[in-house]
Amino acid sequence: MSSYKTLKEEAYEANLEIMRQSLAIYSWGNVSAFDPDKRIFAIKPSGVNYEILRPEMMVIVDLDGKIVDGNLKPSSDTKTHQVLYSGISGIRGIAHTHSPYATAWAQAKKPVPVFGTTHADHCTAEIPCTDFMSPDATKNDYELETGNMIIKTFKEGNLNAAHVQMVLVAGHGPFAWGESAAKAVYLGAVLEEVCKMAMLTLTLDPSTKPLPEHITRKHWERRHGPNAYYGQK
Amino acid sequence: MSSYKTLKEEAYEANLEIMRQSLAIYSWGNVSAFDPDKRIFAIKPSGVNYEILRPEMMVIVDLDGKIVDGNLKPSSDTKTHQVLYSGISGIRGIAHTHSPYATAWAQAKKPVPVFGTTHADHCTAEIPCTDFMSPDATKNDYELETGNMIIKTFKEGNLNAAHVQMVLVAGHGPFAWGESAAKAVYLGAVLEEVCKMAMLTLTLDPSTKPLPEHITRKHWERRHGPNAYYGQK
Amino acid sequence: MSSYKTLKEEAYEANLEIMRQSLAIYSWGNVSAFDPDKRIFAIKPSGVNYEILRPEMMVIVDLDGKIVDGNLKPSSDTKTHQVLYSGISGIRGIAHTHSPYATAWAQAKKPVPVFGTTHADHCTAEIPCTDFMSPDATKNDYELETGNMIIKTFKEGNLNAAHVQMVLVAGHGPFAWGESAAKAVYLGAVLEEVCKMAMLTLTLDPSTKPLPEHITRKHWERRHGPNAYYGQK
Amino acid sequence: MSSYKTLKEEAYEANLEIMRQSLAIYSWGNVSAFDPDKRIFAIKPSGVNYEILRPEMMVIVDLDGKIVDGNLKPSSDTKTHQVLYSGISGIRGIAHTHSPYATAWAQAKKPVPVFGTTHADHCTAEIPCTDFMSPDATKNDYELETGNMIIKTFKEGNLNAAHVQMVLVAGHGPFAWGESAAKAVYLGAVLEEVCKMAMLTLTLDPSTKPLPEHITRKHWERRHGPNAYYGQK
Repeated sequence: MSSYKTLKEEAYEANLEIMRQSLAIYSWGNVSAFDPDKRIFAIKPSGVNYEILRPEMMVIVDLDGKIVDGNLKPSSDTKTHQVLYSGISGIRGIAHTHSPYATAWAQAKKPVPVFGTTHADHCTAEIPCTDFMSPDATKNDYELETGNMIIKTFKEGNLNAAHVQMVLVAGHGPFAWGESAAKAVYLGAVLEEVCKMAMLTLTLDPSTKPLPEHITRKHWERRHGPNAYYGQK
Repeated sequence: MSSYKTLKEEAYEANLEIMRQSLAIYSWGNVSAFDPDKRIFAIKPSGVNYEILRPEMMVIVDLDGKIVDGNLKPSSDTKTHQVLYSGISGIRGIAHTHSPYATAWAQAKKPVPVFGTTHADHCTAEIPCTDFMSPDATKNDYELETGNMIIKTFKEGNLNAAHVQMVLVAGHGPFAWGESAAKAVYLGAVLEEVCKMAMLTLTLDPSTKPLPEHITRKHWERRHGPNAYYGQK
Repeated sequence: MSSYKTLKEEAYEANLEIMRQSLAIYSWGNVSAFDPDKRIFAIKPSGVNYEILRPEMMVIVDLDGKIVDGNLKPSSDTKTHQVLYSGISGIRGIAHTHSPYATAWAQAKKPVPVFGTTHADHCTAEIPCTDFMSPDATKNDYELETGNMIIKTFKEGNLNAAHVQMVLVAGHGPFAWGESAAKAVYLGAVLEEVCKMAMLTLTLDPSTKPLPEHITRKHWERRHGPNAYYGQK
Repeated sequence: MSSYKTLKEEAYEANLEIMRQSLAIYSWGNVSAFDPDKRIFAIKPSGVNYEILRPEMMVIVDLDGKIVDGNLKPSSDTKTHQVLYSGISGIRGIAHTHSPYATAWAQAKKPVPVFGTTHADHCTAEIPCTDFMSPDATKNDYELETGNMIIKTFKEGNLNAAHVQMVLVAGHGPFAWGESAAKAVYLGAVLEEVCKMAMLTLTLDPSTKPLPEHITRKHWERRHGPNAYYGQK
């Protein structure tokens, strides 16, 4: 294996988690792991099933989309990852899945309200959903424009991508990011669980109101910021 | 094993995928693998559970329905496979499942709209649903008429079976086909996932509109045709 | 093990299938295997989890409810099995589960319409649902009266228990029976799948009509009666 | 391991059951095992995934929240457990999960009606749901106040925590308790199954009435009290 062994293994392990958590079937979805010093990332090769994936199959790409190392073609969504690594400071992993509940919210083009503490533990705002891409942008450079659309959604919504680490791309599906590839795919699994719970909640009562703001904030602060006390650190 | 070893093994492997992807319980469903030179196909024996299935149990049948090789009775749906291999040029595999979401759409007798890119990656049109078969056709030669009804649905809907490789038979369930038995059962799994996502989408918003046409086309062209760039070829 | 070894093993294997097909959690549900010559049946012991179940734990009971062999207490539903073996001729197995979709139909006290061929392959009529038991019958001999209520539902509905081999007990859950314990639990799994598909069908279109009668009959006759051609016999 | 070996192992085993029954993903949820003589309990460490959990990682805490033994931080919900062990006499185990159906009922802030015998076998009343906590209580001592709110819900509802051994915390999720940690997590699994069945029942018929009271009582008495006859004791 190349000198990118550690980064490739990090990306590989996170990609396998997509299969373990049933966030996509066959080859769908992809996770990348970013090295902020070298400004490169390791990403899943395009169209390769999780069952046959190996660490050395990961492709190393720089932020201009140049393949730095690897014998396979990188994920067709690679440019979306590039744009997000360039546009969101501090992240080291991105996960894209086709998990069914999150995809259904994306297909219905609806942001996911904060209905409970499972959501608030990971995000204090509703999960945003982008607009549909314009015909021109679609023709131009589709995957790069998908990244741009995500960045634009956060800017226009005045959202902090360090607090809202997930997004739904309208008609497509979810992306999540974090301080590592493992964290990104973890948040992909959280998003699916939150989307399932939110849909079941609306099934029971379509008029359900979001969680009171003070409970939302409390749950976020249990896990994040200077007074966090959840976990072992 | 007979001289049809390779074809039987291809059919066997694809049939097992029905169980691995939970597309049917017990013995339900069937996949066949076609040899276009010899004009014969290998198909699952009737009523045999996936747990005890073996490659040598596959039955070799020609396009007139004559058993060419094998000690067991072929699937009761064999004539439907015959008609589809005769009527759709270029395909080498057919999969029939009883997966619950696809079956529900078939039971509700509703075509599945293109609500997202998961659908558009594999098909640019809604998944068609046949009519119910007439009492006369049902009495005549039921499984052969099921094939005829599928062909008729495609003709009347002016659909290209190379682009729309899936169909719902009203009140019964899904069929899918492709350039190999493995591809056919893969599309059977895709169809189930797409049907689940579409139902969840309508649960969230019954007025959901189909994906804009330019995005649908873009996703199809990422994977098919001269400018495809998804996967490793 | 006692001289009832074969019968106990048949019951044991069929009980394990409840767990394998996810038809109940922990110790819920029970299957029995009947010997029509000796007029006795082997049944799951009460409240024993499937994970620790062993063939020799099965209890042998006669049709008066007398324990003929075994060191454990039989299922609390034993008298329901007695009544069904006495009242339905020709059956050799009974399965009772708490599978979620079938239980939901029972809790909503609704018979399950024939919406598709998956249902028609196994039963040509809607799956009946009993009434709620009266307070007096409940006090009297609850499990025996449950059996009586099933028999009464079939009599009043003029249903043939050889063709309709499943029933929902209102507010409780499903029972299924057949020519062996294995067949009974198979039909329990079929019922769950049919109940799931029927609920999903109504979610897509609450006005869905039952499958045309001629298709229902055709699918039944593919598998049952003198002209059956499904399977290997 | 310390002298608390047995208690830690009991808690450990019950925590693993959360994963085995799919009642939470990753590190979510927690179970504790109580020793009523020593007035201490063993509880899951905070934020540790089930996959890497070991018996010796359990933390021993007394009813004032003092850590008596263990190298890790206890669950962030520890104070809720303290309050419940102090306020409900006779219990020796508590389980908190994030199972999706129970959480959806909690998010919709709805008590779960007794729709069937699966529910009545374990509880004769609807599963209560607390109010949302006030901003002041949330700021004060959140997890302790969660316990107080549960106790208050039972007092105001005049509920006996020996008969109703489960509760939904509004906007958060379920808690269950019992005479052992194993029983508590068993009831957590029961609650999820009951919540799923109840939601499916309302999907079929939103006007479904609760089970007649005499059947509810009968099923409870089959398993509880002097005339119980379910199980092997």
